[in-house]
Amino acid sequence: MEQKTMKALVYHGPNQISLDDVPVPKIEEPTDAILKVTTSTICGSDIHIMQGYIPSVQPGTVLGHEFCGEIVEFGSQVGGGFKVGDRVAVSCIVHCGKCFYCLNDQPQYCETARGEGMTSSMLFGNYINGCQAEYIRVPLAETGMHKIPEGLDDLDVLFVGDILSTGYFGAEKCNIQHGDTVVVWGCGPVGMCAMACARLWGPAQVIAVDLDDYRLHVAKKNGVCDVVINSGKEDAAAIIMDLTNGRGADCAIEAVGLVPTIDAAMKTLRVGGRLEVIGFGTPTYELNMIDLFMKNLTIGSGLVPADNMARLIELIHKGKLNLRFLATHSKPLNDIVEGYDIFGNKKDGCIKWIVTPYEK
Amino acid sequence: MEQKTMKALVYHGPNQISLDDVPVPKIEEPTDAILKVTTSTICGSDIHIMQGYIPSVQPGTVLGHEFCGEIVEFGSQVGGGFKVGDRVAVSCIVHCGKCFYCLNDQPQYCETARGEGMTSSMLFGNYINGCQAEYIRVPLAETGMHKIPEGLDDLDVLFVGDILSTGYFGAEKCNIQHGDTVVVWGCGPVGMCAMACARLWGPAQVIAVDLDDYRLHVAKKNGVCDVVINSGKEDAAAIIMDLTNGRGADCAIEAVGLVPTIDAAMKTLRVGGRLEVIGFGTPTYELNMIDLFMKNLTIGSGLVPADNMARLIELIHKGKLNLRFLATHSKPLNDIVEGYDIFGNKKDGCIKWIVTPYEK
Amino acid sequence: MEQKTMKALVYHGPNQISLDDVPVPKIEEPTDAILKVTTSTICGSDIHIMQGYIPSVQPGTVLGHEFCGEIVEFGSQVGGGFKVGDRVAVSCIVHCGKCFYCLNDQPQYCETARGEGMTSSMLFGNYINGCQAEYIRVPLAETGMHKIPEGLDDLDVLFVGDILSTGYFGAEKCNIQHGDTVVVWGCGPVGMCAMACARLWGPAQVIAVDLDDYRLHVAKKNGVCDVVINSGKEDAAAIIMDLTNGRGADCAIEAVGLVPTIDAAMKTLRVGGRLEVIGFGTPTYELNMIDLFMKNLTIGSGLVPADNMARLIELIHKGKLNLRFLATHSKPLNDIVEGYDIFGNKKDGCIKWIVTPYEK
Amino acid sequence: MEQKTMKALVYHGPNQISLDDVPVPKIEEPTDAILKVTTSTICGSDIHIMQGYIPSVQPGTVLGHEFCGEIVEFGSQVGGGFKVGDRVAVSCIVHCGKCFYCLNDQPQYCETARGEGMTSSMLFGNYINGCQAEYIRVPLAETGMHKIPEGLDDLDVLFVGDILSTGYFGAEKCNIQHGDTVVVWGCGPVGMCAMACARLWGPAQVIAVDLDDYRLHVAKKNGVCDVVINSGKEDAAAIIMDLTNGRGADCAIEAVGLVPTIDAAMKTLRVGGRLEVIGFGTPTYELNMIDLFMKNLTIGSGLVPADNMARLIELIHKGKLNLRFLATHSKPLNDIVEGYDIFGNKKDGCIKWIVTPYEK
Repeated sequence: MEQKTMKALVYHGPNQISLDDVPVPKIEEPTDAILKVTTSTICGSDIHIMQGYIPSVQPGTVLGHEFCGEIVEFGSQVGGGFKVGDRVAVSCIVHCGKCFYCLNDQPQYCETARGEGMTSSMLFGNYINGCQAEYIRVPLAETGMHKIPEGLDDLDVLFVGDILSTGYFGAEKCNIQHGDTVVVWGCGPVGMCAMACARLWGPAQVIAVDLDDYRLHVAKKNGVCDVVINSGKEDAAAIIMDLTNGRGADCAIEAVGLVPTIDAAMKTLRVGGRLEVIGFGTPTYELNMIDLFMKNLTIGSGLVPADNMARLIELIHKGKLNLRFLATHSKPLNDIVEGYDIFGNKKDGCIKWIVTPYEK
Repeated sequence: MEQKTMKALVYHGPNQISLDDVPVPKIEEPTDAILKVTTSTICGSDIHIMQGYIPSVQPGTVLGHEFCGEIVEFGSQVGGGFKVGDRVAVSCIVHCGKCFYCLNDQPQYCETARGEGMTSSMLFGNYINGCQAEYIRVPLAETGMHKIPEGLDDLDVLFVGDILSTGYFGAEKCNIQHGDTVVVWGCGPVGMCAMACARLWGPAQVIAVDLDDYRLHVAKKNGVCDVVINSGKEDAAAIIMDLTNGRGADCAIEAVGLVPTIDAAMKTLRVGGRLEVIGFGTPTYELNMIDLFMKNLTIGSGLVPADNMARLIELIHKGKLNLRFLATHSKPLNDIVEGYDIFGNKKDGCIKWIVTPYEK
Repeated sequence: MEQKTMKALVYHGPNQISLDDVPVPKIEEPTDAILKVTTSTICGSDIHIMQGYIPSVQPGTVLGHEFCGEIVEFGSQVGGGFKVGDRVAVSCIVHCGKCFYCLNDQPQYCETARGEGMTSSMLFGNYINGCQAEYIRVPLAETGMHKIPEGLDDLDVLFVGDILSTGYFGAEKCNIQHGDTVVVWGCGPVGMCAMACARLWGPAQVIAVDLDDYRLHVAKKNGVCDVVINSGKEDAAAIIMDLTNGRGADCAIEAVGLVPTIDAAMKTLRVGGRLEVIGFGTPTYELNMIDLFMKNLTIGSGLVPADNMARLIELIHKGKLNLRFLATHSKPLNDIVEGYDIFGNKKDGCIKWIVTPYEK
Repeated sequence: MEQKTMKALVYHGPNQISLDDVPVPKIEEPTDAILKVTTSTICGSDIHIMQGYIPSVQPGTVLGHEFCGEIVEFGSQVGGGFKVGDRVAVSCIVHCGKCFYCLNDQPQYCETARGEGMTSSMLFGNYINGCQAEYIRVPLAETGMHKIPEGLDDLDVLFVGDILSTGYFGAEKCNIQHGDTVVVWGCGPVGMCAMACARLWGPAQVIAVDLDDYRLHVAKKNGVCDVVINSGKEDAAAIIMDLTNGRGADCAIEAVGLVPTIDAAMKTLRVGGRLEVIGFGTPTYELNMIDLFMKNLTIGSGLVPADNMARLIELIHKGKLNLRFLATHSKPLNDIVEGYDIFGNKKDGCIKWIVTPYEK
C-alpha cells in the first residue's frame, strides 16, 4: 500500500470530533489484518463516546465499530482461508475464540483481547482505533472476520457485527418458546434488530413499544413486529395484558436502558417471565424482590457477543433476515460529522446513518 | 339429545366401508364428552385402516380421527371451564395428562388410555369409534379438547389434532438450530405440516423432496418451503450438497416411511446430522452402522404426540401458521366413500379431503 | 372416621399460636383427600407466619405445610390409583397440573388453586389449614400426593414437598454446567437442600457460605458441599476467586434473602454468571446495571414449584439424595410450641424440627 | 534435542508390530508441538488396527493415541500460554477449534485436520504417527493440548484424551434426565467411562451389563454403577424391566458394537427412550421401524469428540471423576508387544495397559 495517511474521524475529548488525516494502520501482530473500510455506520454507542460518557476512550482514538471491509493485507497467522480482496463483515469485539471466556459464550470478555484494567475485550473505536476511516487494523482477524457470501452486498450484512448480534443476544437470553408473546421496549435500531431476531424462536407475537410513531410505523411496515404501542399515548401495560389473556408477556427485551422502561417491562411480565436488558444507560435499578420471588421472574443484561455472526449471515443469505430498511441515510465519510448530529439527534427520520468511502 | 341414530362411516373389514346408521354415542364415563362433529378429514392412516393393514381396528368401528366439534354434553369430571356449545379441536390420541408417560412427553402411550395389549393410547377410528360421523364420544375429554379461539373457524385448526402435531413433532425431534438446512422427504399433507413447523425453529432453508411436481408446487407457492426437488427428475443428493456447501443437511424429516426415502435422507445428512422418520411403512431398515459411527448421525421415529396443541393453536391464532391451503376438497359426510377413493388415490389434485356435516 | 375433633397448632395473630382442639377436616370437593398426618416439620416460613409477617394468613388457620401422611378418605375424582391407607408425601402448594401455569412450569401460580386476590396458589398453613395437626384436608389431591415407595419411610421423603423442591428449583434456575463452581449463600436447611440438588447437575465444586461454623460443619460432613467458608471470619470473595482461577462463581444460589448476601453473591459471579435467590426477605435490591451489562449477569428468584417431586422421590429411592441428616430434633405434636422456639431461634443445634403424631 | 532416533511401536501390516528405532519427530508446521511421551495406553482400537481392520493405517505408522506428555518444543503459532516443560493431556483427535465442524460440535471431522479422502480428522496412531514411542509430534497443538493441573499426575487425566471423552459423549447423546435409569451394555474400559460420566447428569441408577463377572465386579466396587447384570447368566431384559417399574430404560449406551447387544439395548428401552452406540463393530443393524415408530425411540452413534476435555479435567481436579482404577497393568514401553497380547486377549484381569517411558 502506497498511501501513508488517510481520513479518519478522531475523538479529541467530549463533544470534540473531527475528520483528520492520520497514518494508515499497519500490521502489528501476525494475527492482524488491514482492511479497507467499504461501509460503516454510526451507532448509538458512538454518540455516547462522542459525548464523553465512556471513560475508556482516549483522545486521539479513531471512532466507529460497525463495518464491512475488503482485506488489503494480513499477518502470517491469519488462517481460515482468507485472501487479499475478500469482502468481510467484522465483529465489533475482538476475540480469540479459544480462551475460557470465548469457549463459554462470553467472547466480549476474551482473555486474549483484554488487557490490564480493561472491562471488556478490545472494542473498535473505544480501546483501539475504529472503522470511521479509510482503513482499519483488525486484531485476531481470523476469528473476527466473516466472508460476505456471493450475492450479498455490504448493506445486507453490515449490522451483523454489532446491532444485529446484540438483538439476537437479547432474544436468545430471554428464552422465547414457540407461541410466546415477546415485548420489545424501544424501537430504535437495536430494538428492531431484537424484534427481527425474536422471530427466529417462533413466538406468536412480537409487540413493539416506543414513544415515536414514525419508528413504530417503520417496524410494523417492515414486518419485524406484529403490534405497536406508543406508550406516550396508549396504556402499554393494559394493551399487553389484553393481548396475553391477562397474563403478561412471556419474554421482554429492553433496548433503551432507562429505569421507566425497565420498570414497565418488569411489571408487564407474566409469572415465570424473563427480561433481558440490552439498552445501556441507568447505573442502577431498584429491583422489587417480592415481585421477583412471588412471580418467579428473571432479569439479565449483557454486552453484545460475537459468536452468532456465522448463523446470522447464513440466515440473511437465505433470505430469512433482512434489516436493510434500517439504512435510512447514506453519505460518504466526508460528511460524517454531520451524521453524528443527524443520527444522534434523530433528525430527519434517521434510523441508521451509513458511511460510504471517502470521496476525494 | 333426541336423535337416537346417526350416519357414520363404518369399517366392515379390508376394503369394506359404508355409511351406516348407528346409535348416537352416549356418555359412558364422567370424564367423557359428546361432540357434534362439525368438520373432519380423511387422513392417510384412514386409508391404511380401510385397506386392512392395521390389525387393531375391529369391524364395526366408526373411522376417522382428525376433527373439530361442538360440545353437546359432558360428564361430571370434565373440568377446564368447558361449556355446552363450545367449539373445540380435539387430539386424535386420548390421554390423561397426568400419568408417567404423559408427564414424560409420551402421551401417545398414556397409561390411563391404554388397555391390556394395546400398543398405544386409544386412537379414534382405531381402538375406539371415530369422527367420520355426526357425533363422537371423546374420553378424557378435558385433556383432549382445545377451545377454538374467537375469530378462527374449524378449517384454521382442523389439522392440529393430528397432522400438524405430527409435523411439529418431527421438526422438534430433529433438533433444528438457527441457520440450519432442513430437508423434508415427502410432500404430502404431513410433510407439508412438517415444513411449516420447521420454520418455527429458524432454519435458513427448508427443502422439499417429492416425485410429484404438483405437490411440490403447492408447497412452494404456500411458502412452507424454500426449495423444491423432484427426485424423480433431478439428482436430489447433488442438489442438497450444492445448497449446503457440500456438507449435507443438518436435519431431515422423512414423511413417507419407505426404505428408499429413509436411505436417501440418511445419505444426505451432514456429519452430526439428525433424521426423524414420521412416515409409517417399512417394517425394517438396514442401518449402516459405520456411517452412523463415522458421521455421528442420529435417527428416531415416533407416533404423533398431543401435547403441543395449545401452542399450535396460539400460533395459528396470531397468524404464524396457516395450513388452510391443504384443504383442496370439501364435501358433506354423505360423500365420504367417494372421498376415500379420491384422497386415497391422489386423484384430482386432492391433498386433504374435508368432511362437512351430513346433509339430510 | 369417628373422631370429631383433633389437636392442631392454630395461629391467633402475631406471635400467638396454641395447640387447640379443632374439628377434624372433611371432604369438601370430590378432588379432596383427607390424610392422617404421620410426620410434619416446622419450616422457616412458619416462623415468618407466626411472627405475623405474612398478611395472607388469617387468625384461626392451622399452620404447617411440609408433611407426609396416610390416606384416610378421598373424593370421587381423585384418580391416579390411590387407595385408603397409602402413605404419601405431599406438595406444600396445591395445584391442578392442567392449567396454563401448571403446564408452563409455574404450579405455584395454578389458576385452579388460586382465587381472587391470592398472590399464589393455595398454600397449606397459609391460605388453607395446614399439617401441624392430626389430620389435614388436601385439595386437588391427585396431583399433590406422591406415594412413598416401598422401603422408604417418612423421613426419607419428608422434605420433598417443600425445602428439597425449593433447593432443586434454585439449582435448576441457575443453570449449572458440568465442571462449574456453585456457591450457595446460606447454610440453613433450604441452602443445604440446594447444595445436595446442585450435585445432580455435575458441578466440579459446591461452596457453602454461612456465619455459623456448626451448620457449615454439618453440610461438609454430610457431603452436600466441597468447601465451606465462614464469611464472618474469612474473606469469602477472596476464597471464591482463589478457587475459580480468579474468575468467580459460574452459578450462585442465595438462600438467605438479605441484601448483604445477595450483594456478595452478585459480586463474586464470573462474567456470564447466574444467581438465583431462593431466600425471602428484603423487599428490594439495588441492582448494579453496569455490572449486569458489562459482566453479562442474570438474577432470578421464585417460589417453590411442585413439579419435580416424582424425580426427587426416585432419586431418594435409589440412594442418590439423602437429607435425613437435617432432622436434628424430633418430638410429638404435643411439643410443637416448644419447637417454634427452639427451631425459630436456632437453639440447641436445631436444623429441622420434626413433628411426630400427637401422643394421648 | 540431541537424540536423533527413538523407540516406537511400528505397524508393519496385519498382526505385525515391533518396537523399532525410528527418527525422533520434528516440528513441521508452526502449529506443531513435540512432546516427550510420559505415559500412554493401549486402547481397544489399537487392537483393531494391529489386526489390520482399519484400512487407513499405513505400514510404518507408529501406533497409539491415548497419552500424556511433556512439551519439548513448539512452533511459533502455538499460543495459549504453553511453555516448554508443561505437562499436558492430549486429544486423540487433531482439530483446529475454528472450522465449521469444530464450531458445530464435530471436531472429529475438523476441516483443517482432515485431508482428501480421510473419513475423519487426523487420529494419532492411524492417519499420523502415534504415542507408543518416546516422542510424538502433535499438530494443531494449541487446541489439542490441555495442561495437567497442579496436584494431578498423568494417571489422573490419561484417559481424558480418548476413552473418557468417548464415555462422556455417549452419556451426553442419550440425553439423561434427573432420576433416569441408564443401562450401559459392555463393561470394558469405554463402558466404565460411560458409566462414570452418566452420573454427571443425575440419573437415579446406572446398570452395567456384561458377560464377565470380574469386570462387573470392578465397576460396582469402584462406584461407577449401581447394579450389575451378567447377561450370560441372568435375564438382563427381565431385570431391567423389574428395576424400572416394567417400563424399560430411559437411556442406554452400547459400548460393544455388536448386533446382539445393540438389539438387547433397543428392546429394553422404554417408550421414548434413547440409545447411543459408542462401540464399533458390526457394519449394519436391522432396525425395527415399527418399534422405533410405536415406541418413539432414537438411536445414534459417533466417534469421540475432543471438546469436553477441559471440563473433564476440572471434574477430575475437584475429585468428581476418578478412573485410575482402570489402570490394572503398567509397564515400560520396552514391554509393549506383550501388552498387546495381554490387553488384547483380556488376560490376567487386564482392563487398561499403561505404558511408562522406555527404560534403557
